[in-house]
Amino acid sequence: MSLSIAHLGPTGTYAEAAALAYSQWLTQETGQQSFLCSYPSIAQTLQAVANGEASLGVVPIENSLEGSVTMTMDALWRLDNLQIQQSLILPIAHALLSCAEDLTLIRTIYSHPQALAQCQGWIDKFLPSAQLVPTNATTEALQHLEQDKTSGAIASQRAAQLYNLPILACPINDYPDNHTRFLVVSLNPSSSGSHTSLAFSVPANVPGALAKLLHIFASRNINLSRIESRPTKRSLGEYLFFIDIEANANVPSIQSALTELKLHTETLKIFGSYPILPINSNNQDKTERDTLNEETFQ
Amino acid sequence: MSLSIAHLGPTGTYAEAAALAYSQWLTQETGQQSFLCSYPSIAQTLQAVANGEASLGVVPIENSLEGSVTMTMDALWRLDNLQIQQSLILPIAHALLSCAEDLTLIRTIYSHPQALAQCQGWIDKFLPSAQLVPTNATTEALQHLEQDKTSGAIASQRAAQLYNLPILACPINDYPDNHTRFLVVSLNPSSSGSHTSLAFSVPANVPGALAKLLHIFASRNINLSRIESRPTKRSLGEYLFFIDIEANANVPSIQSALTELKLHTETLKIFGSYPILPINSNNQDKTERDTLNEETFQ
Repeated sequence: MSLSIAHLGPTGTYAEAAALAYSQWLTQETGQQSFLCSYPSIAQTLQAVANGEASLGVVPIENSLEGSVTMTMDALWRLDNLQIQQSLILPIAHALLSCAEDLTLIRTIYSHPQALAQCQGWIDKFLPSAQLVPTNATTEALQHLEQDKTSGAIASQRAAQLYNLPILACPINDYPDNHTRFLVVSLNPSSSGSHTSLAFSVPANVPGALAKLLHIFASRNINLSRIESRPTKRSLGEYLFFIDIEANANVPSIQSALTELKLHTETLKIFGSYPILPINSNNQDKTERDTLNEETFQ
Repeated sequence: MSLSIAHLGPTGTYAEAAALAYSQWLTQETGQQSFLCSYPSIAQTLQAVANGEASLGVVPIENSLEGSVTMTMDALWRLDNLQIQQSLILPIAHALLSCAEDLTLIRTIYSHPQALAQCQGWIDKFLPSAQLVPTNATTEALQHLEQDKTSGAIASQRAAQLYNLPILACPINDYPDNHTRFLVVSLNPSSSGSHTSLAFSVPANVPGALAKLLHIFASRNINLSRIESRPTKRSLGEYLFFIDIEANANVPSIQSALTELKLHTETLKIFGSYPILPINSNNQDKTERDTLNEETFQ
C-alpha cells in the first residue's frame, strides 16, 4: 500500500522539496512507495495527519536564519497525538527567476518578504534600483514573470524547473548557511533515535518555576540542544517551553528527569525519540543543480 | 526641545498607537513634548535610534498569541548600542471595518494573515462563506472598502477613526486576552527599574554549555520571566539566548550571576534595567471606544 505524505503546498515550495526527498529516501531504504498531498497551511497539514487523512506529514520546524516555525510548534502542542518519526535538514538556495534577457533589464522583484530579506545584500549590489514587491508565497511571485519581462521573482531552483522559467542568478542568498530542518510526523509511537523532543506548560504564578525545571536537566548534566518558548495564549507572560534533548528518552538519566519533570509541570507532552535522517543534502542539491537551466549565474 | 519617537508605520498600525500612548504619557509625567516619525520596518525604526536620527524608538517585542517579534530581537542584538528605557503593554482589539450596510452583505474580508487567523472563529460563526484575502499590512486592507461595498477589512479601531471608516463589529478576536508588549529604546544607559533584559551567544560545540549557563541563574534562585532563543545565522543549531529577569541588574545576586555569565558566554549584551510603564491600557481603550462610530457591534 502506498503511503500518503502531507506537506504545505503548492508545488515548488521548499516544504514540497523536503517531502519529496523524504519520499525518495523511504523508497530507497525500505521499498515503501508513497505519494504527496499538498495542504494550504502547516496547521492543515498536521491536522490531516492527526485525523488519519494522511499517513505522514512533513513540516518545517526551524530555519538557520529565521528561527523557529511557530505555526508548527503551536499545532504540535494543540493536536496532542502526533509523534516525531524523523528529522531532516535541507539546504535553501534562492534563485532569481526571470524572462528578461539579462539582469540589467529587471525593474521589479517579487517574492515572499522572508526571501526578499534573505537576498537584500545581493539585491543592493546587483539590482540597487529594483522595486521590491512582497507576495504571500514564493511561488505566487512566478505568475508575473511571463507577462512582464522586466520583472523577476526569487524562488527555489525546483520552482524554476516546475514552472519552466529561466534562472538568471543562483544562489543569491546573503548568508551561505541557509538550512531548514523539517520533522516527519505520524500517529505511530516513536521511541528509537538519538533525539527527544518535548514541551510543557508550568503552573501560573509560581515564582521560580522555570528555574526549577531547568535545574532538573542541569543537575543531571543533560544538554538541551534547543529551548524555545511559546505563549500559552491565556495571558501575556505565560509560556509553554519546547525542549530538544540529544539523547533517547529510554536513557536512565533522561527517564529520571522526565519523571521529576512530570511532578512540576502542568502539562507535559513528549513528542518521541527519533533519528536525524541521513539524507545527503549536498548530493541532492547537486543533482538538482545539474538538471537546471545552464544560464545559472554563480 | 521636542523629542522624536520612531515607530513602525504607516498611521493606523498598533505600533503607532503604542508610540502615541507613550508620547502622551511622557507629556503628562514629565512635560516633555514629542512627535512621531514612522519607518517602513522594525529594523529601520531601530536603526534610526542607533544612528541618532530619532531620540527614542517604540517597537513590539511580544504578543500574547503570536509570541516573540523576532525582527526586534535580531535588530537589538545586531545594533549593539540600544538600551531599553521602558516597557508598555497595549490591548489589541480587532474590528471589522466596512462600508456595507450590514454584515450579511459582506463577501470578502481583507487583512494581514495574523489578524485573519486571530479572528477565524468569529468569521466562521458570522461570515462563514466570506472569501479571506491576505494583505501585507492591516491598513493596506482599507483601500478596498470604498470601491467595493461587499468587502470588509480587519483593522484597529484607531484605523477606523483615521480613515473615517465605519466599524461593523468590535472586538472580533477569538482570544479575549490579546496584548502586545512594546519596548521604548534609546541610546541612553538605563539602570533603574524592576526588569532586566540581556542576550548572549555561547561558544560553538561545547556540550552542556546551555545547561551550565542556566544553572548560574537557577543556583541563585533567580527567576527568568522569559527565555527565547534565536539562530546565530552562522550555522543551524547554534543559538543566541534572550533572557528577561524580574529584578534590577544592581541587586547583588544578579550582579554576581552576570559576572559569572560573562566568563562562560562568547558575547554577552545587557540591554539595561527598566520599569513597566503604568499606562492604563483599559482607560485608553475606553476613551478610544467612546469616540468611535456608534454602529459598533459588541
